[in-house]
Amino acid sequence: MTGHHRTPVTVVGLGSMGSALAEAFIDAGHRTTVWNRTASKAVPLLSKGAVHARTTAEAVAASPLVIACLTTYESTIEALEPATAALKGRALVSLNSGSPAGARRLGDWALGHGARYLGGAVKNVPSAVGAEDTLLYYGGDRSVFDEFAGTLRVLGGDTVYLGADADLAALYEMAVGGTLLPALVGFFQGAAALQARGLEVASMVRFSTKWFEMINSVLPVFADEIDRGDYSEPASSVRLFLAGAAHDEELGREANLDTEWHRPFHDLLKRAVEAGYGDQSISALTEVLRKPAPTP
Amino acid sequence: MTGHHRTPVTVVGLGSMGSALAEAFIDAGHRTTVWNRTASKAVPLLSKGAVHARTTAEAVAASPLVIACLTTYESTIEALEPATAALKGRALVSLNSGSPAGARRLGDWALGHGARYLGGAVKNVPSAVGAEDTLLYYGGDRSVFDEFAGTLRVLGGDTVYLGADADLAALYEMAVGGTLLPALVGFFQGAAALQARGLEVASMVRFSTKWFEMINSVLPVFADEIDRGDYSEPASSVRLFLAGAAHDEELGREANLDTEWHRPFHDLLKRAVEAGYGDQSISALTEVLRKPAPTP
Repeated sequence: MTGHHRTPVTVVGLGSMGSALAEAFIDAGHRTTVWNRTASKAVPLLSKGAVHARTTAEAVAASPLVIACLTTYESTIEALEPATAALKGRALVSLNSGSPAGARRLGDWALGHGARYLGGAVKNVPSAVGAEDTLLYYGGDRSVFDEFAGTLRVLGGDTVYLGADADLAALYEMAVGGTLLPALVGFFQGAAALQARGLEVASMVRFSTKWFEMINSVLPVFADEIDRGDYSEPASSVRLFLAGAAHDEELGREANLDTEWHRPFHDLLKRAVEAGYGDQSISALTEVLRKPAPTP
Repeated sequence: MTGHHRTPVTVVGLGSMGSALAEAFIDAGHRTTVWNRTASKAVPLLSKGAVHARTTAEAVAASPLVIACLTTYESTIEALEPATAALKGRALVSLNSGSPAGARRLGDWALGHGARYLGGAVKNVPSAVGAEDTLLYYGGDRSVFDEFAGTLRVLGGDTVYLGADADLAALYEMAVGGTLLPALVGFFQGAAALQARGLEVASMVRFSTKWFEMINSVLPVFADEIDRGDYSEPASSVRLFLAGAAHDEELGREANLDTEWHRPFHDLLKRAVEAGYGDQSISALTEVLRKPAPTP
C-alpha cells in the first residue's frame, strides 16, 4: 500500500520515543514530517523516508495531525511558539511525560491558538512502539481521537480514549507509572543482595517476573477494596507487612545494603496501625497516603 | 489413586498458608497430619480427612516429611523443641518467611538434632498453592529435595532447587519479594490520585497490569547490566528518572497526597548522579544501594 491514502503526520521532538513514533508512521506508509531542535537527530529517519522541516512552523504546516514528543509540556509550548499561526485548525497530540497541570496548560495554550488538543501517554518503552499489545491512552478533544484513531493505532494496538479532560492521560500516566521507580529500586536491592553472596542477578529474573505476575493477580482485589472503602476482609493485613519489615532490616545488615529507603514505608505501616487499620487489608494504606484536609 | 502409595506428610502451623499447604496434600491423597498451637484452626482440615496431632512430637513422629509453616524461624524452633527426639532421621522443610540468618539458625538447630533440613519459600498467595504455575524454591539438603520432589510438587508445579545453602530460599525470598511493598504503595498512591478526581480505581487496573508487564520485560536487561557492571548503554538514564521526580511532587500537591515516601528515592537518584551515573542506566542504582566498606 502506498502512502497516498494515509494521513500525513508531523512528529516534533526526536528523542528515543519521538524517533520510535516517527519510525512507526513511516513504516505504516504515512508521509511523516519531522523536526528536532538538534537537527542531526533527524538523519536516521530521513534515510527511511521522513521529510525534514527546518522550523516547527514548517513542520506543523505539513500535516493535519501534529504529534509532540518533547521533554516537558513547557518545552512543547516553547518549541511550538513560532508555529502558532500554522496550528490554527490542526490537531495537536502530545505524548510526553508530565504533570496533569502541565497538560492542562498545554491544552489551554493550544485551544487559545485555535488548535484542537488531545493529550496522550505511551505506556511502554520506545522499542514497543507499533506493537499490537502496546498501550497508549488519550484525554481531551474526542473529535481528534475519532478522526485520527486509525492513525494513532499505528503507534500501538491498545489505543484508549479516557475522556474529555485534557489532563486525563497525564493523570493516569502518573497514577499508573508511580510504581516504576519503587519497584525497580526493590529489584536493584535484591540484585545487590544476591551479588553480596556471589550469585548472578540473572538467576532472580524468572522469580521476579513471576512475583510481578502475582502482584498483578491481586490488583483487582485491592482496587475493589479501595473503591468500596472496605478493608475488612484482608488477604494480607497491614500488620503482616509490618512483621516483614523487620526481615528487610536484617537483610540490609547481612548484605551491607543501604535500607534507609524502607523507613517511610515502615512509617506508613505504623500510621495505618495507629489509624486502626492494623488487621485490615494492606490496601488501606491508600487512606493514610491521603493528606488530611487543612484545618482552617 | 488411594493414599497408600503416597508419602505421609505432617504440616505444623495452620495459618492461611499452612492450611493451604495441608489442603493441597490432602487433595493429592497424602495421609496428612496437622498441628497448630490453637487447635481450632485444624477443624476445617480434619473434616477433609487430615489427622490431628495433639503435640508437635506426635505430629513429627507421624511422617517422614515434616513441613513447618509457622510465623518465623524462631517460632518454628520453639514449637518443635518438644519434638527433637522424633526429628532424628526425618526431613524438615520450612516454608515460612524470614531472614537468611533465621534460616541458617533453624538449619543448624535441625542438623543438631539429627534431622535433614531443606529451607523453602512459597512465592505466591495461599489460594495459588497447588497450581501448575505456582513457584516454590528450596535450598539446603539436596537428598531431601530429591527424595520428596514429587511430594513437594503437590504444592506448586514450578518447584526449584536453588543450592546446598540452607538460607538460599530466604535470601531469594527477600531479594525477589522486596519489590512488593514499594510497588503496592505506588499503586495505592495512584488509586488515591484517581479518587481525588472522582475516578474509579478499577479503571486503572488494566493499565497497571500492563505496566508491570512492561517492567517485567526490562528486568533481563537490567540484570545483565548489573551482572556485567556496565551501565553505559542506558535505555532509561538516572537523569531521566530524576526529571520525572518533579512531576511526582506536583501530582502530590494536586491530589493532596502525602508524597514524603518519594524523598529517599530522589536522594538515591541524586547520589547516583553525584557518583557519576547520571547519564548511565537506572540499574546503576544497585551500586549506590551498596554501603561502602567500613573504613578501619
